[in-house]
Amino acid sequence: MNSLTHPARSLLPSDGRIAGGALGGVVEGVYDHMLAYQWRMLTDQVPGAEPSHCVENFRIAAGEAKGDFYGWVFQDSDFGKWLEALAYKLMAKPDPELEARADEVIGLMEKAQLPDGYLDTYFIINGIDRRWTNLRDCHELYCAGHLLEGAVAYWQATGKRRALDVMIRYMDYVCDYFTEQNLWGYPGHAEIELALCKLYDVTGERRYLDLARTFIDRRGREPYYFDLEQEKLGKPFFPHNAGFGRAYAQGHLPVRAQRTMEGHAVRALYLACGAADVAVRTGDAALWEACRAQFRNTWARRMYVTGGVGSTYTGEAFTFDYDLPDDTAYAETCASVALVFLARRMLQGELDGMYADAMERALYNTCLSGMSLDQERFFYVNPLAVFPEADEKDPNKRHVEPERQPWLGCACCPPNLARLMCSLLEYQYTAREDELQVHLYLNSTVKLTLGGAAVEIAMETDYPRDGRVKLRLAPGDYALRLHIPAWCGSYRVLRDGREIAPAVENGYALVEGPFGREEVVLDMAMPPRRVHAHPSVRSAAGKVALARGPVVYCLEEADNGAELHRLLLPADAPLTCVERDQLGGTAVIEADGLREGFPSDDLYTSGVPAVREPARLAFIPYYKWANRGRNEMLVWVREA
Amino acid sequence: MNSLTHPARSLLPSDGRIAGGALGGVVEGVYDHMLAYQWRMLTDQVPGAEPSHCVENFRIAAGEAKGDFYGWVFQDSDFGKWLEALAYKLMAKPDPELEARADEVIGLMEKAQLPDGYLDTYFIINGIDRRWTNLRDCHELYCAGHLLEGAVAYWQATGKRRALDVMIRYMDYVCDYFTEQNLWGYPGHAEIELALCKLYDVTGERRYLDLARTFIDRRGREPYYFDLEQEKLGKPFFPHNAGFGRAYAQGHLPVRAQRTMEGHAVRALYLACGAADVAVRTGDAALWEACRAQFRNTWARRMYVTGGVGSTYTGEAFTFDYDLPDDTAYAETCASVALVFLARRMLQGELDGMYADAMERALYNTCLSGMSLDQERFFYVNPLAVFPEADEKDPNKRHVEPERQPWLGCACCPPNLARLMCSLLEYQYTAREDELQVHLYLNSTVKLTLGGAAVEIAMETDYPRDGRVKLRLAPGDYALRLHIPAWCGSYRVLRDGREIAPAVENGYALVEGPFGREEVVLDMAMPPRRVHAHPSVRSAAGKVALARGPVVYCLEEADNGAELHRLLLPADAPLTCVERDQLGGTAVIEADGLREGFPSDDLYTSGVPAVREPARLAFIPYYKWANRGRNEMLVWVREA
Repeated sequence: MNSLTHPARSLLPSDGRIAGGALGGVVEGVYDHMLAYQWRMLTDQVPGAEPSHCVENFRIAAGEAKGDFYGWVFQDSDFGKWLEALAYKLMAKPDPELEARADEVIGLMEKAQLPDGYLDTYFIINGIDRRWTNLRDCHELYCAGHLLEGAVAYWQATGKRRALDVMIRYMDYVCDYFTEQNLWGYPGHAEIELALCKLYDVTGERRYLDLARTFIDRRGREPYYFDLEQEKLGKPFFPHNAGFGRAYAQGHLPVRAQRTMEGHAVRALYLACGAADVAVRTGDAALWEACRAQFRNTWARRMYVTGGVGSTYTGEAFTFDYDLPDDTAYAETCASVALVFLARRMLQGELDGMYADAMERALYNTCLSGMSLDQERFFYVNPLAVFPEADEKDPNKRHVEPERQPWLGCACCPPNLARLMCSLLEYQYTAREDELQVHLYLNSTVKLTLGGAAVEIAMETDYPRDGRVKLRLAPGDYALRLHIPAWCGSYRVLRDGREIAPAVENGYALVEGPFGREEVVLDMAMPPRRVHAHPSVRSAAGKVALARGPVVYCLEEADNGAELHRLLLPADAPLTCVERDQLGGTAVIEADGLREGFPSDDLYTSGVPAVREPARLAFIPYYKWANRGRNEMLVWVREA
Repeated sequence: MNSLTHPARSLLPSDGRIAGGALGGVVEGVYDHMLAYQWRMLTDQVPGAEPSHCVENFRIAAGEAKGDFYGWVFQDSDFGKWLEALAYKLMAKPDPELEARADEVIGLMEKAQLPDGYLDTYFIINGIDRRWTNLRDCHELYCAGHLLEGAVAYWQATGKRRALDVMIRYMDYVCDYFTEQNLWGYPGHAEIELALCKLYDVTGERRYLDLARTFIDRRGREPYYFDLEQEKLGKPFFPHNAGFGRAYAQGHLPVRAQRTMEGHAVRALYLACGAADVAVRTGDAALWEACRAQFRNTWARRMYVTGGVGSTYTGEAFTFDYDLPDDTAYAETCASVALVFLARRMLQGELDGMYADAMERALYNTCLSGMSLDQERFFYVNPLAVFPEADEKDPNKRHVEPERQPWLGCACCPPNLARLMCSLLEYQYTAREDELQVHLYLNSTVKLTLGGAAVEIAMETDYPRDGRVKLRLAPGDYALRLHIPAWCGSYRVLRDGREIAPAVENGYALVEGPFGREEVVLDMAMPPRRVHAHPSVRSAAGKVALARGPVVYCLEEADNGAELHRLLLPADAPLTCVERDQLGGTAVIEADGLREGFPSDDLYTSGVPAVREPARLAFIPYYKWANRGRNEMLVWVREA
């Protein structure tokens, strides 16, 4: 089985192709539409959307245009993520038009890069003397990490080395700088750690892996680097992060001593990704155990039923165990994307269905909800209860948008979604010498080596629309481990049509080979089901959520009228799943519920009997909400 | 009946005396303990408490000490309120020690006052050239109003004119300044309007009443004064209020056009008090109607069951109809005090039991909860649900304190409570020529003229401990109107022991005279009762609160264990009222409830039956919570 010392290997998007099926359709939309749309965003060609200026910043830094830097200090990262997403598409299908656009920006990167290798358009444009002076807030290493991930993927996809060479020059400089000149610094926003591991993987250069570990080792040590840095700065020129405390950037403890995720959720998750990557590559058991404990605590106490994490807007942060308010949730799209990233890494070292369950929960709910069905509008925040008047008038909920936006001033989420959707093969499988481990069910074909032989494996499914998954296997002496999701109460496994009873270990059914050219079918019953939260979750007390398979459902005003909190679902009401045309074809869950009426106009009454009228309730998948205009939405519904 | 053109008159605290009984005991505590304690606070003599520096600011401004101004820009107001409270005590009983201290500070006021009459220690110490330049934020007129209220009351109590003369000089200057030099300005924080009406009442000088009306008339007009002012200021030297919008200071509409209370709750309520005072004195029907509509909307849609108002910390403000979150409530103590002030003014023009109900609800719940049983610790914020870990770790709840503080940096509430408690006679009764209108039930004697004759009326009751109220009447030809609280489902009225059946109009039972030397008894049944909120109140959906008489109850961790949200009260569980020794003798409501247990450690489960164990629940009066250390508290309890 997988372990830290014998980890499973992960697949690359280039190892196969996703197409067709429920989720494959979304991926094809990203390939064929969203990437081009995001290019127009990055080049400010979409009227009415918040400007990005991202590519223009590169043009200015390269000396090919005049102007000021515009956008967040981390604006470069948007291009890095987009480039990475495009690379994954190019592994699946050509796109000469966008490839040419990417090459142009890579040319700008070459021109903008300083002779010593440094490359960050904010500081190149605004004053290079200030580089590295505010690692806490200024995201240089974060941007470098994203550009590096993009460059690695682009090289893998196209064989073109220009971007990779730019980033190797930059990373060589970064390695020197942070081991010779700056002996204490590390990034305020983790990201480069995991990117350096990718660079180590493709170059075999140990120094990149060592630097990743060095950054992790330095974090949370005394003297506290960011305090020294801020003292030196005097008046910070970029002060927006002051006051969040050390946990904001996970500096409250040495990383190996951290047992819970704290502070800014995306930072915490990216840091854990980097830490897991380092641990898997170095056998660092203490680091691995920190990742493991953090993941388990997050799974068991700090994750929304939708896979969202980060309970509060302030600091975009984790709060404390069981604190999962539905209407003030932050649950940033990027945090759920990062949770998928982390879950796959954890699976490499520990084949535990919990990680795949977390991956599914995030992917099919908060990740997908991050974009509209037409893939042109995006959510940054993914609440579980929306009452538009409150989002407008209650300052505690001003971060909650009742509708997706065409672009976001802080645009981290849209290209993050794009790169995740285009690389789902990385999350679908991990592999050992003689074993294919199946975590996600989606239509794809992959080629890999199993049992010493090259095999091609095709998966056919309409999951999560239904629970039937067919694997067409190539002959060989290997085994399959099929994730049996925790939600799944009843399933069958068939081998060439004959039901078998595989052993299930840690959430995975073991189907042992050798196989001929045969089919293995996993058929999961997927009735609508009620979900209840742990009694310590205050916001869900007395409430129920519905789900079907990995998909969490919600009530929307468009189907159920206003004041959704007045609706009740009786504990014994049958749940019916009905295929409807709406929202591109949707399995709607319907039930006979109740609506509280108004027994009186008085604000408070005593002894006035409650009025409850029958109401037919219709639940839609959470990720499809807010595709019909501004309206109320509710995941946790009162149970009668 | 009372109307705008024929208003009832209000009593003064000097018209009688409160002593004994449940609430009288609290008043005596304020007389005998809290006023002296607050004097020590105002003079920084309480170790471990946040410093006030209030009196020291006067000393510095008077040239009798060296030093800097310390505290909020409105620090002077704390002395004004304390002086007013002391004056009300002096009407009831002597206190030569505190009276001498008051006279000393009045001496400092005289010395600090500028030759033109101006008196505000912040600007006298920090630079008089900046006075009146930032009316929006700097509270000069607010402080003036409080000092004026104190001076009027002190003169009424003692006959000493020094403070009153200081304030008349100041007000004459203010009248000139704001009618000759500044033709557009008005206070950012209303208060002086109602104080000017008091000055008009004791001097008969019409110009004071006119200035009050002028300030009201100017608010919310175009061009918007505070914008002009901020433009002129350039960079404001006191910018903490930027960004709240015009409603923060009720400048979003002309006052006569305002139909809902918006913005900062205390400001909105003080403004309405001043507007009602002006309307009653001038017959201004449009102004009166604005007050009436605002009160009705607040009562019907924006008031917590505890009488708290102001749903959000941000801007200490009203939000929107039915938005009454329990765990992020602001519900400032001062706002409930102000609600009592306003209710009495409304009763003068319209004898409607709603106003007395609101007065009771605020007084017996949020006002009393503002202070500890020992009257040495205070709440600014009065939430309806407290989970201490959340108040510490969820930034949305950082304003919620699980324990009262010895003093508050912004100390408006403690002396506001003191002046309210010492002047309850003003709220107990209003009167017409031949009619006594009884709004609050508490032990007192009053002397007034009714039916052309001087009469003395004594009320004996232990309300709200029990519901029996005895009025000992003096002979005369007058009537009584006795408020029958909205909560009261069953009562008897007895006249010298014989039950009568008085007509009830607008919430008042009419007992017609003439009377001999006789007793009228109102005996209200006061069983514990369940209260439900309007179905549009999202935070109370599916929940129940308990009350007995005017007193709202709550669960506290000290009696019921942790995780109060896991407790349920069945809709049919009998409620038992038991007198207990705890917390100074308390009528505890007990019931057989349920506690949700942990069927599983999983964060989310499907198909796992809920575990509910019997749990004996004990509810205490809301106002007594947090007198046994840091712990959870909950008003709205899940109903099974």
